[in-house]
Amino acid sequence: MSEQKAFSTNSSYEALTDRFRRASLIGDALGILDWDQATTMPEGSAEGRAEQIATLSVMRHELLVDSSVGENLLAAQEAFQDADAESWDAANLREMQRSYAYAAAVPGDLVEAAARANAVCEIKWRGARAANDFASLVPALQTVIDRVGDIAQARSEAFELDPYDALLDEFEAGTRVNQLDPLFGALARDLPGFVEEVLAHQASKPAPVLPDGPFPVAIQRALATKLMDALGFDFGAGRLDISHHPFCGGAAGDVRITTRYSEEDFTESLMGVLHETGHALYEAGLPELWRYQPVGKALGMAIHESQSLLIEMQVSRSRPFLEFAMPHMQAAFGADGTAWEVENFYRLYTRVERGFIRVDADEVTYPLHVVLRYRLERALLFGDLPLGDLPGAWNDGMRDLLGIAPPDDRLGCLQDVHWPSGAFGYFPTYTLGAMAAAQLYGAAQRDLPNLAEDISAGQLSPLIGWLRTHVHGQGSFCSAEELLTAATGEPLNPQVFLDHLRHRYLGDA
Amino acid sequence: MSEQKAFSTNSSYEALTDRFRRASLIGDALGILDWDQATTMPEGSAEGRAEQIATLSVMRHELLVDSSVGENLLAAQEAFQDADAESWDAANLREMQRSYAYAAAVPGDLVEAAARANAVCEIKWRGARAANDFASLVPALQTVIDRVGDIAQARSEAFELDPYDALLDEFEAGTRVNQLDPLFGALARDLPGFVEEVLAHQASKPAPVLPDGPFPVAIQRALATKLMDALGFDFGAGRLDISHHPFCGGAAGDVRITTRYSEEDFTESLMGVLHETGHALYEAGLPELWRYQPVGKALGMAIHESQSLLIEMQVSRSRPFLEFAMPHMQAAFGADGTAWEVENFYRLYTRVERGFIRVDADEVTYPLHVVLRYRLERALLFGDLPLGDLPGAWNDGMRDLLGIAPPDDRLGCLQDVHWPSGAFGYFPTYTLGAMAAAQLYGAAQRDLPNLAEDISAGQLSPLIGWLRTHVHGQGSFCSAEELLTAATGEPLNPQVFLDHLRHRYLGDA
Repeated sequence: MSEQKAFSTNSSYEALTDRFRRASLIGDALGILDWDQATTMPEGSAEGRAEQIATLSVMRHELLVDSSVGENLLAAQEAFQDADAESWDAANLREMQRSYAYAAAVPGDLVEAAARANAVCEIKWRGARAANDFASLVPALQTVIDRVGDIAQARSEAFELDPYDALLDEFEAGTRVNQLDPLFGALARDLPGFVEEVLAHQASKPAPVLPDGPFPVAIQRALATKLMDALGFDFGAGRLDISHHPFCGGAAGDVRITTRYSEEDFTESLMGVLHETGHALYEAGLPELWRYQPVGKALGMAIHESQSLLIEMQVSRSRPFLEFAMPHMQAAFGADGTAWEVENFYRLYTRVERGFIRVDADEVTYPLHVVLRYRLERALLFGDLPLGDLPGAWNDGMRDLLGIAPPDDRLGCLQDVHWPSGAFGYFPTYTLGAMAAAQLYGAAQRDLPNLAEDISAGQLSPLIGWLRTHVHGQGSFCSAEELLTAATGEPLNPQVFLDHLRHRYLGDA
Repeated sequence: MSEQKAFSTNSSYEALTDRFRRASLIGDALGILDWDQATTMPEGSAEGRAEQIATLSVMRHELLVDSSVGENLLAAQEAFQDADAESWDAANLREMQRSYAYAAAVPGDLVEAAARANAVCEIKWRGARAANDFASLVPALQTVIDRVGDIAQARSEAFELDPYDALLDEFEAGTRVNQLDPLFGALARDLPGFVEEVLAHQASKPAPVLPDGPFPVAIQRALATKLMDALGFDFGAGRLDISHHPFCGGAAGDVRITTRYSEEDFTESLMGVLHETGHALYEAGLPELWRYQPVGKALGMAIHESQSLLIEMQVSRSRPFLEFAMPHMQAAFGADGTAWEVENFYRLYTRVERGFIRVDADEVTYPLHVVLRYRLERALLFGDLPLGDLPGAWNDGMRDLLGIAPPDDRLGCLQDVHWPSGAFGYFPTYTLGAMAAAQLYGAAQRDLPNLAEDISAGQLSPLIGWLRTHVHGQGSFCSAEELLTAATGEPLNPQVFLDHLRHRYLGDA
């Protein structure tokens, strides 16, 4: 640890930590403003809020591209040369360099042009989706695509990466097409047949029954709170609120998740809350000492999604968890009967269906939705797919992969906000996250022999403790690949996920 | 208007407007963070929030003291020389100079030392008040007083003002001791006898009856919302929430007020809401074109308080308003009987009582609380009152002015947060505001002959329109004195307030 001391008295490094601390706190302020906008803000205040957010974003960007940053990074690197390359300070310096490289790779006017194009297109998209009118979106979306292409090009040159890799890398460092192509190729090849098998298997068993409502919102909230509490969510440093699109946001030490409730069906909202709780536990478990430094932040979006999917898919949709949760559900709604048996809820929560909408998809069909988007976004950006042909290509892809085609674009290529908001290279992280979740959960089961019994008894702390040690508390100290290897014994191995699917959906477990 | 064009193409002035716009938007972000902290934030997140707020505050300060600001101000002044001195751009430049002078007059390390002393002392104060332990507050409060003294000295030199004037001037530009001394001297001389008269007069009439509760919070809120709505509060660009200490905050175009409810007595909370609504209407009515510029901001705290007191004291506690509100109150709580007659509520809402606590004081005794604080804060800062002698001096002053002395310091010199948080020179604005409110309301009555009838019919828009024209929409275009003169025909005239008191509390009106 002596090297940490040496580093921390280096004046260039100190100047950097001050600067990144400030940028991090601006990010926290933005997190609260975003949360407020989605949950609380009066409708008429949207314009002013956009100005506030733009101002803080620009100021944060300016902090990171200031000419002193490059100089201080060089000087600090020099000073760190003989020091312990395995220290947190060294990792922090590495993450600072990454942030700086990202901020500096793209000229400010391109950043601004892209932000404006995204903002315009996102608003257009809302109207186009509501009106099922893809054609009206084309001009704005083409501008977004052009700017994303420019950004990919600029980063490609700065980082010597394939342009699409330069997009992927932003969301999950180290993700590359040459890893995704074989992975997604195998999914596209094997998963459609697997879905057939699962549907046949499922048809041989009784269909699940949806419990009868109504389910008052206040009771749903109290039930969700109880389960969040069991998972270790700290309401002294976090909140649960309502928003149209559920998310996990807020600030360091103030982690806020949201959901939406339907009084007819509580089961979806409940799983949504548990999903966001997985994200929140990650944020809350990041290393406190490094809270405002780059190395103290969450790894990329794939690892983030692995934490939500681990809690939702691996834990909460399992029989042991439902055994724990069932008495609480019954007590909350004063209900009993066959619909309220663990086995029925298990069938309900592992139901596989071919559907048009990604966010409603089960864990078996979900990767096919991702493969479709992965193919199409590359073709739009760097291939030969004209934007006007997207709806046709979308529907062809759906038929190919899922055997169904949407009746309209609202249920097709207009469903997601990602492309209109400029997020290209993001979709793959959902499936990488599902795979990492399965692999991490497998390792936790190996390390914690009583895990199933603990969970069915409502004892979640051994699992959460394991995640704190192996994932949350690691921040961005090492790469995702190193983290997975240290926690599970090997880098990302898609077979673990596929085995999980086979076991859960074709076994009788 | 041609001069406005000339100005706005001046590059120095444009650089300034960009910079002040940014500072204003940071201020808006701070407004939302403050609001969230008081209403919504989990308790355990206080430390992180303090860091966010400190970071944004420092960045805003840095914007305003940047070396380019002074240069651009000089260049813009030069360019404005031959232009219309009466234009909004000229007024904006003047307000920029004022902001810059304030930011630049005090060295950064003193600003920081004072902020830290205030933060430490405010926390100490909470404990000391709860424990009724003034002695434990003395060291921290002495540090605050020392730093405030240093700031007053620095400003005194920069602005060539008496040091206490330099403190007053921050909260209400142009306020001077040589104006306050005769004013508060006259109040100290005449008001105690007047209170005697009022109490005797009041004793000759039936005592008001407090309506019987309980009053459910949800119904109180709905009632408050209805009256806010009648006053023109726009819920599409504002909110009403709960906090321990009621306030008006938020951001430009997003004005948020708070209250607290007691289920035993709704009358206090309701008046509190109407008071904050007065502040909110001012903020919402500021000139939209100048929203993010210094000239578009509210004038000082005295004019702000005049707007809350005009709505609360002049309007809401009047018979015409109670005639309008009474059916709504009765309907809300399903109540009737003698307690629910306008005359009873009028007596309740104009009840005069000698009390220890300033925030609970009626409008007759309130100025005496202010005079006490005015005398004592000057003696602490620039006179010969040692801090250890404050409790005794407080109790002597209370006996002098109000004829009662508090049984302990919790009800005495520990009651207010102002001094522990470094706000010296603030208290006088409450009474200046009360006087301006009476004077402005008198002018509105003169200009709107049907005002009483309109109000009793629930037609508040003529009055609010008058305030928009004469106060809200003026922003900081002119000084408070000029604003009062333009609206009422004369500068601040305390006699109007005293006449109002005599009329309301000794007349039979």
